[in-house]
Amino acid sequence: MTEKRVWLFREGNAQMRNLLGGKGANLAEMTNAGLPVPPGLTITTETCMDYINNGNKMPNGLMDEVRAALNDVENQTGKKFGDSQNPLLVSVRSGARLSMPGMMETILNLGLNDETVEAMVKLTNNPRFCYDSYRRFLTMFGSVAWDMDRQKYFESEVEKVKEREGVKEDTKISAEGWKSLIPVYKKVIKEVTGKEFPQDPYVQLQEAIEAVFRSWNIPRAVAYRNMNKIDHNFGTAVNVQTMVFGNMGDDCATGVSFTRNPATGENTFYGEYLTNAQGEDVVAGIRTPKPISELQTEMPDLYRQYVDIAKKLELRYKDVQDMEFTIEKGKLWILQTRNGKRTAAAAIRIAVEMEKEGIIDKNRAVELVDPYTVNQILLPCFDNKALEAAHKICTGVNASPGAAVGKIVFDTEEAAKRGEAGEKVILVRIETCPDDIHGMAVSQGVLTLRGGATSHAAVVAKGMGKPCVSGCEDLKIDLANETLTGCDGTIYHKDDIISLDGGKGLVMEGAVQLVEAKIDENWNTFFSWVDEIRTMKIESNADTPKDIENSLKFGAEGVGLCRTEHMFMDPDRLPWVQKMIIAGTKEARKEALDKLLPMQYADFYAMFKALGDKPLTVRLLDPPLHEFLPSKEELIKEVATLKALNKDASQQEEMLHIVEGLSESNPMMGLRGCRLGLTYPEINVMQVRAIFEACCDLKKEGVAVKPWVMVPLIGHVNELKTVKEILTKTAKDVMNEKGIEVEYKFGTMIEIPRAALTADEIAEYAEFFSFGTNDLTQMTFGYSRDDAEGKFLNKYVEEKILPRNPFESLDTKGVGQLIEMSMEKGKKVNSALVGGVCGEHGGDPDSVKFCHKIGLNYVSCSPFRIPQAKLAAAQAVIENNK
Amino acid sequence: MTEKRVWLFREGNAQMRNLLGGKGANLAEMTNAGLPVPPGLTITTETCMDYINNGNKMPNGLMDEVRAALNDVENQTGKKFGDSQNPLLVSVRSGARLSMPGMMETILNLGLNDETVEAMVKLTNNPRFCYDSYRRFLTMFGSVAWDMDRQKYFESEVEKVKEREGVKEDTKISAEGWKSLIPVYKKVIKEVTGKEFPQDPYVQLQEAIEAVFRSWNIPRAVAYRNMNKIDHNFGTAVNVQTMVFGNMGDDCATGVSFTRNPATGENTFYGEYLTNAQGEDVVAGIRTPKPISELQTEMPDLYRQYVDIAKKLELRYKDVQDMEFTIEKGKLWILQTRNGKRTAAAAIRIAVEMEKEGIIDKNRAVELVDPYTVNQILLPCFDNKALEAAHKICTGVNASPGAAVGKIVFDTEEAAKRGEAGEKVILVRIETCPDDIHGMAVSQGVLTLRGGATSHAAVVAKGMGKPCVSGCEDLKIDLANETLTGCDGTIYHKDDIISLDGGKGLVMEGAVQLVEAKIDENWNTFFSWVDEIRTMKIESNADTPKDIENSLKFGAEGVGLCRTEHMFMDPDRLPWVQKMIIAGTKEARKEALDKLLPMQYADFYAMFKALGDKPLTVRLLDPPLHEFLPSKEELIKEVATLKALNKDASQQEEMLHIVEGLSESNPMMGLRGCRLGLTYPEINVMQVRAIFEACCDLKKEGVAVKPWVMVPLIGHVNELKTVKEILTKTAKDVMNEKGIEVEYKFGTMIEIPRAALTADEIAEYAEFFSFGTNDLTQMTFGYSRDDAEGKFLNKYVEEKILPRNPFESLDTKGVGQLIEMSMEKGKKVNSALVGGVCGEHGGDPDSVKFCHKIGLNYVSCSPFRIPQAKLAAAQAVIENNK
Repeated sequence: MTEKRVWLFREGNAQMRNLLGGKGANLAEMTNAGLPVPPGLTITTETCMDYINNGNKMPNGLMDEVRAALNDVENQTGKKFGDSQNPLLVSVRSGARLSMPGMMETILNLGLNDETVEAMVKLTNNPRFCYDSYRRFLTMFGSVAWDMDRQKYFESEVEKVKEREGVKEDTKISAEGWKSLIPVYKKVIKEVTGKEFPQDPYVQLQEAIEAVFRSWNIPRAVAYRNMNKIDHNFGTAVNVQTMVFGNMGDDCATGVSFTRNPATGENTFYGEYLTNAQGEDVVAGIRTPKPISELQTEMPDLYRQYVDIAKKLELRYKDVQDMEFTIEKGKLWILQTRNGKRTAAAAIRIAVEMEKEGIIDKNRAVELVDPYTVNQILLPCFDNKALEAAHKICTGVNASPGAAVGKIVFDTEEAAKRGEAGEKVILVRIETCPDDIHGMAVSQGVLTLRGGATSHAAVVAKGMGKPCVSGCEDLKIDLANETLTGCDGTIYHKDDIISLDGGKGLVMEGAVQLVEAKIDENWNTFFSWVDEIRTMKIESNADTPKDIENSLKFGAEGVGLCRTEHMFMDPDRLPWVQKMIIAGTKEARKEALDKLLPMQYADFYAMFKALGDKPLTVRLLDPPLHEFLPSKEELIKEVATLKALNKDASQQEEMLHIVEGLSESNPMMGLRGCRLGLTYPEINVMQVRAIFEACCDLKKEGVAVKPWVMVPLIGHVNELKTVKEILTKTAKDVMNEKGIEVEYKFGTMIEIPRAALTADEIAEYAEFFSFGTNDLTQMTFGYSRDDAEGKFLNKYVEEKILPRNPFESLDTKGVGQLIEMSMEKGKKVNSALVGGVCGEHGGDPDSVKFCHKIGLNYVSCSPFRIPQAKLAAAQAVIENNK
Repeated sequence: MTEKRVWLFREGNAQMRNLLGGKGANLAEMTNAGLPVPPGLTITTETCMDYINNGNKMPNGLMDEVRAALNDVENQTGKKFGDSQNPLLVSVRSGARLSMPGMMETILNLGLNDETVEAMVKLTNNPRFCYDSYRRFLTMFGSVAWDMDRQKYFESEVEKVKEREGVKEDTKISAEGWKSLIPVYKKVIKEVTGKEFPQDPYVQLQEAIEAVFRSWNIPRAVAYRNMNKIDHNFGTAVNVQTMVFGNMGDDCATGVSFTRNPATGENTFYGEYLTNAQGEDVVAGIRTPKPISELQTEMPDLYRQYVDIAKKLELRYKDVQDMEFTIEKGKLWILQTRNGKRTAAAAIRIAVEMEKEGIIDKNRAVELVDPYTVNQILLPCFDNKALEAAHKICTGVNASPGAAVGKIVFDTEEAAKRGEAGEKVILVRIETCPDDIHGMAVSQGVLTLRGGATSHAAVVAKGMGKPCVSGCEDLKIDLANETLTGCDGTIYHKDDIISLDGGKGLVMEGAVQLVEAKIDENWNTFFSWVDEIRTMKIESNADTPKDIENSLKFGAEGVGLCRTEHMFMDPDRLPWVQKMIIAGTKEARKEALDKLLPMQYADFYAMFKALGDKPLTVRLLDPPLHEFLPSKEELIKEVATLKALNKDASQQEEMLHIVEGLSESNPMMGLRGCRLGLTYPEINVMQVRAIFEACCDLKKEGVAVKPWVMVPLIGHVNELKTVKEILTKTAKDVMNEKGIEVEYKFGTMIEIPRAALTADEIAEYAEFFSFGTNDLTQMTFGYSRDDAEGKFLNKYVEEKILPRNPFESLDTKGVGQLIEMSMEKGKKVNSALVGGVCGEHGGDPDSVKFCHKIGLNYVSCSPFRIPQAKLAAAQAVIENNK
């Protein structure tokens, strides 16, 4: 625990983000860089956790420290908190270590009360602005600090004033109109909460600070952290900063901007602003803002000042900056800067261009791209011709790139439910708020009627890699009848299919044809740097020649996992597979296998040919045999029905008998993997024969082949020893028959905890270990993947019992410990032992970094995840070198 | 590999049993002790494994070494191998490190051929004996070395001779009769094998040695090793020993005897012999032998000589000796001595009495009893009155003690099948041979018509702890009609129920009433020594007050596992348990739990009261909830039937819906254990409330209570942390309500590999670790216990892929490694951490020894296994002190 809990901006710096939060650290950095930052103070993130861990109790003496710091701010500004002549007004904002935009609470204009508002009127000579500010403060205070319904108690009253004054827009309400709301709001606050609105600014301040602390754990913030894999123990800092006003008249403005375009990466100043507005108006999407380029015309000097500051900040942080500014009566204030979120394509372009501009080096460029996002670029987009031909419903803001096709759904809960169930839906909303996040997460895309490129919908969708079109103000939604009316008056109903092009801002009728993604020059440059830096090989999981083609396109350096059972599921083969399974005798089984042999041969021939001189790791048959038979439950139902109707059920009963004989109460831990091969050795023999016949023939044709034969589910060295004897003999036999030698490796999956624990014994018989981290996670945790997620695992992650879903990201403490142990033990007896991962984790960037750290030779993942695995592997090298 | 492969008897000693086998080491020891042992040589066990591992190829130069050693034997005896004047004849016998009686092959009278047999006739002047010996040798050579069917090609010819000579017994066949078989046998050997019977004794010898080597791996030997947990890599030695003959006339005899009674332990010389016979006649049970006491009358000098030698050997080996002797023309030869097999009751009596006689000390006494056998003594026996009143079918030899009730089955295969399926059968055979072992193993008891107390049936049954009555020569079996005719002519059919009293040798009609076992003074003395020596606590697994009563009777020092789910299965409670499960809301669940609370209270009240001041470890609800609901498959069948008949199925469909919602594809790895408690905290809260209400009330009544609360299936520290918070709060609440403090411990099962891997984190929140080795074995191996055994595990054990069934005996390399790791990591953060085992392994002697070795504090097992666990724990102390 750091003893100093309250820091003035001039006391901090950019390196202190863990303690001061991202916003606080950057305000400090900017302050010290001499930029025009309104003075203020930051309460540390640790203090927030202290508050939460003490059951939401304010730490002793904290307010005294705040008061002391605020005195300093008063001295800097010449204003005084609660003063009846020249009152200091402040904003109270959250600011976590990692950006969580819009997730937590903010209160503005704090310090206003019945007395100071009058002082402000005198000072500004702008009563309309002052009473508006006061009623905004009352609204935020009531809803944020004291949990009142904003719409019900506050916004509804604004509507009444508009009606009374006969105006349609907020900006048209008179000073008297705003003023009339003050007593109304104070009264409703008292009625609902039972407490008087506090006139004492320090009481206001304490309430606001506590509200921000508490907002660390409101549901949308927790959900956001879960989705973005942010530790729930970080806490948020609280920034108390002198208010500046972008809404004091037409010489005022407020805006946000990026130093480069966050959607495309283009090196142009990018952003939006509103004149005579407060910052929240831009972000909330209530008024549609103007592009920043217009500021150049409206206020050329200030624009130039701002661009200068922006470029300086980009150089200082060696990253794109996302800044907030306010112009108060012709004076520019910088309220915030932070590294800008961006699409994956933008991230790559920015990284490559900044390197070329000499701002950063290659290592820094590689660090600038989040590996979790790069596969967005590989997502399909619409076919150009189909796009042209499509019926456009509307054009809006290109808020987040990508192509989405799905059914219209208006209700977030419904979208969440149907999307989770696997249905393709598009969430259509007037505007989105943080409560919509869970619905957005499982939709194909998001369409909103209001808000620009930096609205909530846009920012969140970009973070998720979801296509989003926002600001389609010409569309109309009828929520009661669940219809959407297009620009031409066409009415679309719930469940009608539409298509979104988030990169172009287009909304189209029906399902527009998709085409695969194209990779550009920046991508190639960037990944050439990645390949230079990384040391771990990236292979792919591929079961067909088509998969191999894809893998090679994405730069796979081999196939780390070829699952042969997928070949067995082919409808042409299934009957023979079933015959093999139900065979009563070895001979009958052999007969079925003889039919399957040429088919497997053809599979392997095509795959080895496609892959050429890179290793192809074939896993021998793994799943329980009953997976290839009809469902037991269906058969029970069928037999019962036939019998009830006095019909012949003998055939179905016979099959049921067979299926029951093979069924297991826990198939995941039953007769599968090498246990199959040891029970029915002829199955493995057939597969190995097919592999080597194919390889021998290809080698004769001059094709280089590198077969790696992999045995699944080894738990005891004797299993491997026994299987190896049979299989190496088969391989030798085939090579003798064909009269040609093929070099190969023989290895094993390590996916049973006991295999890891006895890896020293097992390594004597294996040239490589391939960690099947899916199964290893299952067994190490005792979680059945098929059951756990729905039954309790999601709840575990939500309730922070587990930091992450261990099937998504490797549990380094438990499963990772076993992997590390295996390699250590294995290398003691076999120093040439090769180690890799072929589970889902092979494509998860954090897991890939762990694999690099413990010295594995390769990871293998699905073809689309190869780029992100490569990038993670390169970043791991850079991190380890630091 | 030891370089010297062939050892003369005088070159070895009793310590060399691993290399020379038990028989060879003992022959060497006896030779060096100056006892009358026929000279010979031993080929090492390693040579046997060398032969087998080289694909049954004779090691280079081995026969040269044998020839050199045999020259020495020739010099000692003055006879010469193959000599036409004074030929040396030898026996060739197996002899493994651990005794495997009758499991491997033996060839006698080797060295006989057409020439030496005539020399023998001249020497002995006993042509009948010589030709009989030659035909016996031909029979054994053909059947053992060259795999011919003994019955078909050899014994059938003996019948023809009997017919020709008009005699009924072998002993009545004339010299000419035996002689006539020689050309017949040589001819049939040539016809069947295509090879001439070898006249060269060295060729005979090599063939015989190879046959003995190979017999290490014949099916019955492999089965015996599996059953007796003998390593398949030990191999057998081969003993080549000068023949002595017990069948050269009436001044000859052969027999086997024990220095004490192996059935009761009584300190009397015990055994059987036959005059004018070879040793195999006694063991094979073909002629029913005389009790050894008769030898005292028949040959008093020799008897005295033999008893002297026997007592010397007992003192030398500090154990009961099982000896074989032959008297050849008035000279006593000792052919073998080994530690005698005995019943558990005999073992205890012998150990106690030998200590009292000053032959051994207490430690040695404790070592003399095999912990795997002691629970035989706890098996029930017949009620005395019921036994008297029962209709006796027959009285036979009391071959192996114990009481058995079951259905008559005549066929070994049928007995094996039905016994495995759980049916209670009694195997009834004329005599048993090694091929009957698998049928004996699953029968309740064995009844044979021939053979004495040392017959195959008797020896094997004793080893298995199966009741056996042998030698019921008055019974008749009709195999064709599957009937058994009693002494009084009553005919019993297959499937009729009979009772066997193996201790008294009684066969009775119907099911005779059983009573529980009684424990005698020797038992008490023996276990007082065991308790003195052992340091590890032995607790019991007990779910009811009745279990606790049993546990205390067997000396449990606490309850290490009380499974609360067994209480939920009670038919009175199941409806409320089901209501709890299908409750849609927290409130509905609470209501059901409120009904269950007083029932659980009553359970705990009774159990804590019964156990008093010893710790009672309560495991919170563990199994998946669907175990308490109707079967899904039954419901599917029911719904399909009702629907096919157009009947209302809505009720069943609703239940099916609930059951399907709860069903899991791998329930063993699903929503169970602490995952239940975290999903529905109110269940655990109810249980903990019941525990503490009961304990508080009892403490108020002055009853000492020691509750230990145990959470199952922890895999991540946060699970335990979360549960602990809820549960310690509940405990505190109850104690506050009741106004009394109860000391308790809070701990966790370690049964998930990840818990073991992160035990340092977990130990911060646990006062004890209880290793649930059943689940830990499941997860560490990835074996579902419900599936594995039938599907592949039995095969694995048979085929030596696994040395033992890891659910029976702890896999120390894998699972044991995790346990050791857990305790090491756990004690680093919590040095007071208590560790114990509560899986099935807690009662398995080898596993108990491992637990002691790694420093666990207790094991917990089913009440009947407490004595064997205690004994193993004491033996572990002795072994560790060596």
